Amino acid sequence: MLEELKRKVLKANLDLVKNGLVLYTWGNVSEMDRASGLLVIKPSGVSYDGMTEEDMVVVDLSGNVVEGKWRPSSDTPTHIEFYKAFPDVNGVTHTHSTFATSWAQAGRDIPFYGTTHADYFYGDIPCARSLTQEEIEGEYEKNTGLVIVERFQKDNIKPLEVPGVLIKSHGVFAFGKDAAASVYNATVIEEVAKMAFITESVNPKVQRADRFMMDKHYLRKHGKNAYYGQGSHK
Amino acid sequence: MLEELKRKVLKANLDLVKNGLVLYTWGNVSEMDRASGLLVIKPSGVSYDGMTEEDMVVVDLSGNVVEGKWRPSSDTPTHIEFYKAFPDVNGVTHTHSTFATSWAQAGRDIPFYGTTHADYFYGDIPCARSLTQEEIEGEYEKNTGLVIVERFQKDNIKPLEVPGVLIKSHGVFAFGKDAAASVYNATVIEEVAKMAFITESVNPKVQRADRFMMDKHYLRKHGKNAYYGQGSHK
Amino acid sequence: MLEELKRKVLKANLDLVKNGLVLYTWGNVSEMDRASGLLVIKPSGVSYDGMTEEDMVVVDLSGNVVEGKWRPSSDTPTHIEFYKAFPDVNGVTHTHSTFATSWAQAGRDIPFYGTTHADYFYGDIPCARSLTQEEIEGEYEKNTGLVIVERFQKDNIKPLEVPGVLIKSHGVFAFGKDAAASVYNATVIEEVAKMAFITESVNPKVQRADRFMMDKHYLRKHGKNAYYGQGSHK
Amino acid sequence: MLEELKRKVLKANLDLVKNGLVLYTWGNVSEMDRASGLLVIKPSGVSYDGMTEEDMVVVDLSGNVVEGKWRPSSDTPTHIEFYKAFPDVNGVTHTHSTFATSWAQAGRDIPFYGTTHADYFYGDIPCARSLTQEEIEGEYEKNTGLVIVERFQKDNIKPLEVPGVLIKSHGVFAFGKDAAASVYNATVIEEVAKMAFITESVNPKVQRADRFMMDKHYLRKHGKNAYYGQGSHK
Repeated sequence: MLEELKRKVLKANLDLVKNGLVLYTWGNVSEMDRASGLLVIKPSGVSYDGMTEEDMVVVDLSGNVVEGKWRPSSDTPTHIEFYKAFPDVNGVTHTHSTFATSWAQAGRDIPFYGTTHADYFYGDIPCARSLTQEEIEGEYEKNTGLVIVERFQKDNIKPLEVPGVLIKSHGVFAFGKDAAASVYNATVIEEVAKMAFITESVNPKVQRADRFMMDKHYLRKHGKNAYYGQGSHK
Repeated sequence: MLEELKRKVLKANLDLVKNGLVLYTWGNVSEMDRASGLLVIKPSGVSYDGMTEEDMVVVDLSGNVVEGKWRPSSDTPTHIEFYKAFPDVNGVTHTHSTFATSWAQAGRDIPFYGTTHADYFYGDIPCARSLTQEEIEGEYEKNTGLVIVERFQKDNIKPLEVPGVLIKSHGVFAFGKDAAASVYNATVIEEVAKMAFITESVNPKVQRADRFMMDKHYLRKHGKNAYYGQGSHK
Repeated sequence: MLEELKRKVLKANLDLVKNGLVLYTWGNVSEMDRASGLLVIKPSGVSYDGMTEEDMVVVDLSGNVVEGKWRPSSDTPTHIEFYKAFPDVNGVTHTHSTFATSWAQAGRDIPFYGTTHADYFYGDIPCARSLTQEEIEGEYEKNTGLVIVERFQKDNIKPLEVPGVLIKSHGVFAFGKDAAASVYNATVIEEVAKMAFITESVNPKVQRADRFMMDKHYLRKHGKNAYYGQGSHK
Repeated sequence: MLEELKRKVLKANLDLVKNGLVLYTWGNVSEMDRASGLLVIKPSGVSYDGMTEEDMVVVDLSGNVVEGKWRPSSDTPTHIEFYKAFPDVNGVTHTHSTFATSWAQAGRDIPFYGTTHADYFYGDIPCARSLTQEEIEGEYEKNTGLVIVERFQKDNIKPLEVPGVLIKSHGVFAFGKDAAASVYNATVIEEVAKMAFITESVNPKVQRADRFMMDKHYLRKHGKNAYYGQGSHK
């Protein structure tokens, strides 16, 4: 079942490695099929070397394995919370990519410093709060998702406009309309995080760039009147 | 038409990837043919993978597409302003390369700290001012070019002597006598930006190197009496 | 003798190069065979290029070469002290990997800043004290091992729970249940050291992450009730 | 003539590229043949791609080209001063490698922070003073050599014990008993420079490591009683 989707999710997971975003098994990608209400995700702790589409796991939104020979990623309950809360998100990527994870460890939102950021993120990349002891000792992975959803709702952030988030002392989640788009956005977050680190070192008093520049760059690529590219808005 | 030029521009664009200066489609190179008054440039938002010379777009100095199956780079109006203002510039590269873009985000000129810089840049690498809201909401890409030209004119900078510029909160433009030379200079800017970042971290009180050292290094490579290399001045 | 073990130790040594942890010959891996009381280790100062399992050296716990055509690594006496003091450690890796060695030169424990760290290290990664002049001028390599063992014993650190250590002004030792696991942990230390460097630059006032988060992450992978992966605890 | 030497010098120059020490043509290696009083060096400004031993240039200690179809490296007079002043130096490498050049731009000696440094450099890696205007406008490349020799003589540094030097606002020269050894040392300088940069960022108050540790590490590899490796002292 969902053979085409398994191929897409496999490719997206392998692209994490190709793009330099993961060491060993430290990442996972899923994609949601709204028609069937099922998602396909990487198995837990299985090496990327030699991974095939047969290794992908099909899960429903209650977390039950519907098909697959492996346990799904231990982060599956986090992915599920995103698919439940964000109807237009159909791809989710989790990484511990070096620079973005360092910002997560630093506990800071990544400020909007330039157009590389604004071409994909319509605002700062938020860093969700630490989980409480109770949240960690309870349904940890589910609560990780809920804490992120809480931040997006509290600040009225639309996940396809700011398609990524850091989680304090942990790592990165990126969103997209499908698995591939979420990997793309995870790759951008890593680059933007690296640039922001260097930017602040070069100018410790740097301020955010102008809001109207963010509007211009985000909207020329993603708005109704987008004119970047060949007419299909990513 | 301009088949040889398309091959050169394609190669120059692919060299951006090879030299590690671009992620995805975040860069573009053009070259100007003064005889015909036409320039060849990369298409907008098209992947470098599998790109051929047939994908290149021929544009006139009013921005009209003269030949090509794709829309030209959305940065084409910026390139055009350079070709109009700088008669000896026939190659232009735009990148968001990591370290140079970070200096652009920091809003600082890259100071002359050593001979690696002076071998190619006869002075600090300028960072042009932010565009105003009006400039951004108007003809943005054209105004980007005009703001850069303004800086070169105000400070009397010759673009083939300082063949590159940062634009505040954005990225890099590099110049050359042709497309390949502009890619070469974009590559040097990235390396010089990286070194300047490390230099200031190692010695926060570092001063610019001596002016007479800049004269010596720049002129032994580029002056009338240049003696570096085999007699053809790059 | 120990042919299978030689193959494993050779592969572990070559993985050091593949994982970017060594320049030239600056690293070595060994594995202990408790049944025979012998260990297999890389020869001293021999290039990784073209190294075969026949180059591996078999040594007993008194440091005598039992088999092999080369001298064993000059760090062999350090490895031996670990195998004598830590009965559950059967793999040891030594590197001068860039970021971890920089923390060693800085003389600091690597603080627990996030889950990437806690997934493998159940506490800060300790930096053992400098050796005294007497310890250095005496049996230097043996004393290096003893100083590390001293730190683990003083702070009651279990080497398979915190499977790595820095040694002041020197480099890294990593532990594991076998050679491959020690290389894995050496690779993690380098990544964690890099992240901690960036983290402190981005937020100079950063605090350690919460203890209950460390418990959660370490124990979901390594505890009795571990549920990460497919049921075999690494 | 000197065909074997040309092959060695070619290989050493190509190893600069392989080891990531040069962009474009920004480096050169030579080796001295004391018997004939001639040295072989890379040509000036010629690309490494497709370079063959026939491109190498033979020069005497007065700087005359004895054989070769190209001009020798413009840095040849610097190399010559080293061969004249340092009788045991028979290999010289010049690079603008990123981290070491940044220390040169910062104008600082690289302090002895650990054993990676002491395994190859028996003391801080010195940064020679800036050249005066007169020295730069006169015989610049020759004076560069003289300023470095001045520093080694003033501080009584032996070039095979501290086989490398930075030159203020410029780059790196490394020494060796032959071309290959000088490339090896240039590679170590780059790594040591990177580590020292990170070390100071992680601990801004870091002090030099102990002198007796330097003695131990340098001498176990290079002294009369060296015991590292297989009995041939590098």
